[in-house]
Amino acid sequence: MSKVITPQEQDYSQWYNDLVIKSGLADYSAVRGCMVIKPYGYGLWEKMRDALDKMFKDTGHVNAYFPLFVPKSLFEAEEKNAEGFAKECAVVTHYRLKADPNNKGKLMVDPEAKLEEELVVRPTSEAIIWNTYKNWIQSYRDLPILVNQWANVVRWEMRTRLFLRTAEFLWQEGHTAHATEQEAWEEARKMLDVYAEFVEEYMAVPVIKGIKTANERFAGAVETLCIEALMQDGKALQAGTSHFLGQNFAKAFDVKFSDKQNKLDYVWATSWGVSTRLIGALVMAHSDNSGLILPPRIAPLQVVIVPIYKGDEQLAMITEKVKPIIQQLKDMGISVKYDNSDNARPGWKFAEYELQGVPVRMAIGARDIENNVAEIARRDTKEKQSVSLDGIAFYIKTLLDEIQLHLYQKALRFRADHTTTVNTWDEFMEVLDGKGGFVSAHWDGSSETEDKIKELSKATIRCIPFDAAEEPGQCILTGKPSKQRVLFARAY
Amino acid sequence: MSKVITPQEQDYSQWYNDLVIKSGLADYSAVRGCMVIKPYGYGLWEKMRDALDKMFKDTGHVNAYFPLFVPKSLFEAEEKNAEGFAKECAVVTHYRLKADPNNKGKLMVDPEAKLEEELVVRPTSEAIIWNTYKNWIQSYRDLPILVNQWANVVRWEMRTRLFLRTAEFLWQEGHTAHATEQEAWEEARKMLDVYAEFVEEYMAVPVIKGIKTANERFAGAVETLCIEALMQDGKALQAGTSHFLGQNFAKAFDVKFSDKQNKLDYVWATSWGVSTRLIGALVMAHSDNSGLILPPRIAPLQVVIVPIYKGDEQLAMITEKVKPIIQQLKDMGISVKYDNSDNARPGWKFAEYELQGVPVRMAIGARDIENNVAEIARRDTKEKQSVSLDGIAFYIKTLLDEIQLHLYQKALRFRADHTTTVNTWDEFMEVLDGKGGFVSAHWDGSSETEDKIKELSKATIRCIPFDAAEEPGQCILTGKPSKQRVLFARAY
Repeated sequence: MSKVITPQEQDYSQWYNDLVIKSGLADYSAVRGCMVIKPYGYGLWEKMRDALDKMFKDTGHVNAYFPLFVPKSLFEAEEKNAEGFAKECAVVTHYRLKADPNNKGKLMVDPEAKLEEELVVRPTSEAIIWNTYKNWIQSYRDLPILVNQWANVVRWEMRTRLFLRTAEFLWQEGHTAHATEQEAWEEARKMLDVYAEFVEEYMAVPVIKGIKTANERFAGAVETLCIEALMQDGKALQAGTSHFLGQNFAKAFDVKFSDKQNKLDYVWATSWGVSTRLIGALVMAHSDNSGLILPPRIAPLQVVIVPIYKGDEQLAMITEKVKPIIQQLKDMGISVKYDNSDNARPGWKFAEYELQGVPVRMAIGARDIENNVAEIARRDTKEKQSVSLDGIAFYIKTLLDEIQLHLYQKALRFRADHTTTVNTWDEFMEVLDGKGGFVSAHWDGSSETEDKIKELSKATIRCIPFDAAEEPGQCILTGKPSKQRVLFARAY
Repeated sequence: MSKVITPQEQDYSQWYNDLVIKSGLADYSAVRGCMVIKPYGYGLWEKMRDALDKMFKDTGHVNAYFPLFVPKSLFEAEEKNAEGFAKECAVVTHYRLKADPNNKGKLMVDPEAKLEEELVVRPTSEAIIWNTYKNWIQSYRDLPILVNQWANVVRWEMRTRLFLRTAEFLWQEGHTAHATEQEAWEEARKMLDVYAEFVEEYMAVPVIKGIKTANERFAGAVETLCIEALMQDGKALQAGTSHFLGQNFAKAFDVKFSDKQNKLDYVWATSWGVSTRLIGALVMAHSDNSGLILPPRIAPLQVVIVPIYKGDEQLAMITEKVKPIIQQLKDMGISVKYDNSDNARPGWKFAEYELQGVPVRMAIGARDIENNVAEIARRDTKEKQSVSLDGIAFYIKTLLDEIQLHLYQKALRFRADHTTTVNTWDEFMEVLDGKGGFVSAHWDGSSETEDKIKELSKATIRCIPFDAAEEPGQCILTGKPSKQRVLFARAY
């Protein structure tokens, strides 16, 4: 398989696909719109999942598991939610195959095994979960319920892209139930902060926190909070959402609780999720034409050591020298691979680990040992340095921290350079068609105007940032009055 | 909700259902045959999954993820496999719902969104995975592939039981590809050993390793290896299987590799899996009429400390005393909960933690502190003992190890007492209808006889144990010659 990757400048979209496939993150599958997450990609997902899972547990959440299927009658109970997802539902209608009498060796759907009620493959689990919570909640003593689920979901998308938009994807979905509106709001907001912390501190991708407009809101939510990230091609990507669901699902599924005064009320709800889409964001936020660039904190492999040798004797000497360094790295919790395989030349190995985005590479040869040094290369800047073997493990540990920080700062700088404040429609279009990025502009607050802007510019309102100052102005399209700026961008 | 559990002696099956539901492991759902795994049950599954995952990784395996759906044409490629699972396949036929024009607010399957090719919800993933491996394998250098997947699968069962037999369940499925027959055989055998080690050392359930007869073989396998466990009601339970698939799937999906001599050959395969069914086995192997009994190594919570106090002052004093003990336990990697909640009396708490099977309970009151002791109760034997506070954390650690060992030995003794060698049909039926358990008997080796025995006795051949000695004899049903004994039982 050729490992040549289309350069970003030439075709960003093709660069992305090449990179995802050639670095071994994922592969297309025989199922329309579904992908195979390959071991390297899944290893990355495990690192992300484990970090998130710990953050969820540290904030008091527990995991559970609910059915893959949602009976149609439950699915349609919350009308807005059902309407929003109806168009992309995979539907199970039969429960048996049988031998095809007209086609030896082939199977056909058994018409006698038709389900009385169709089952929707979950596109999201509010319906099945709130139907369950109904049995779990009687009194305020049963609240809050702070449950998360790691699961696969299916949304039948017509245009798919590896990780970014696939018919089936892996995600986590938190579903919480509360006695008061305020508590639910605080939960929704808290989980957005957890997501932001994860994306910034682990993925090294800065995000804008804000609130979605009505047009972009989750179907069935009262409000949707989001974090928005910027990719290197100037397009935005929604990296996570946290929904305040009000009492919508409690009403749809008749979930009431008696409070301390023995008064019955509907339960308040939130839901929040991030998915394997984050892997797409990670790739597009940092990587280059040589391959992936992975932040050390979530890289499946943080350090690779490549011996440069001729003959077994030199290899043995290098191995002897390297052993205690590997042990020291492991003791510091750093993942390290010693690649002494003899089926590839060092140069080939270097290119391969660059492609895979391993943050730090150490190369060491016989001459280096004489000089008590090794060559340390960092993946992000590709800088190489000759480093003394004395204390080299600690040097590497510090370097990993530096790379993590550098990636974040670089992305932050990029975002600052690609966030533009505009006041007219011409400026707006000029920025979008030019350098891209986030565009801060006034909007009159109506869904119609938002639709019209989207139609004309292909840009959407990514969010109303939490930190947006009150500032009167005029809508870039209609000239009508506006109270504050919102953040537009073309987006994935 | 009443926490009364039907006694085992009265109705074992009802006892099991009561226990699973009332201890908070799982719940029924609105979807026929599917269950909700509640937080406590999922916590248990996480402990089991994490232990297994580590064992898989320690033996060189990596995780990946393949699509939930299998196109019908791929599903039917390996005929035996397809035939075996066709009768229990959930089938997706449509990809969209739409508003029902005759039923306001309701949805209907959109007849215009019919899939060209139906998609089977995976009952197992050999087909989709081998269709993928075809692209991954060209040469012996690409082998072995040692991949595992954690996933949900669906098998449309008519009679379901929580954990033991559900339409959807969680499992792991290993799928490996090898250059030689011997290597594949060794892999299949190795993973059976991994399963046996896990079930015995973590779940404290002894197992018999053996090989399945042709009747009981996995559809599409050349041979199926299994581990069989014995439940407290004398019925057997298949706890895990590891399949040597030969070249069956490689041939069905045309997966060839060139060996070192550049000769093309089909790839050799194994697959192996365990599922949430193990939780059912765990419950039935150890628990009693008061609730669950969980082995310390996989108990989500290992130690609970309950203060016995009157007033805040006493509670503060106890808390002060208990704090360093909690810290010591945590430092030793022991999970501990200090239940100082004031919404329940100690007696109620004791019953609740017994129901949940927490291995060790420590109760401590003001008088105890005066005497520098605490009361330690172990869940398995319900023995209580007054233990000096000096070094009590270490005492608890040792006790946890002792409980783990004791549970295993008790189960081992039970199995020995319930494994009977018989030589005649009358003896065979007498044992099955009497004390139950494993029955070691001669069988003439034919599938017809095996079927007949099953029909007459409801017992199946659980396996031909690896350690069965060659011993000539006569089939208990037909009197025909037999070379060795096999293990029969009525089974879950």
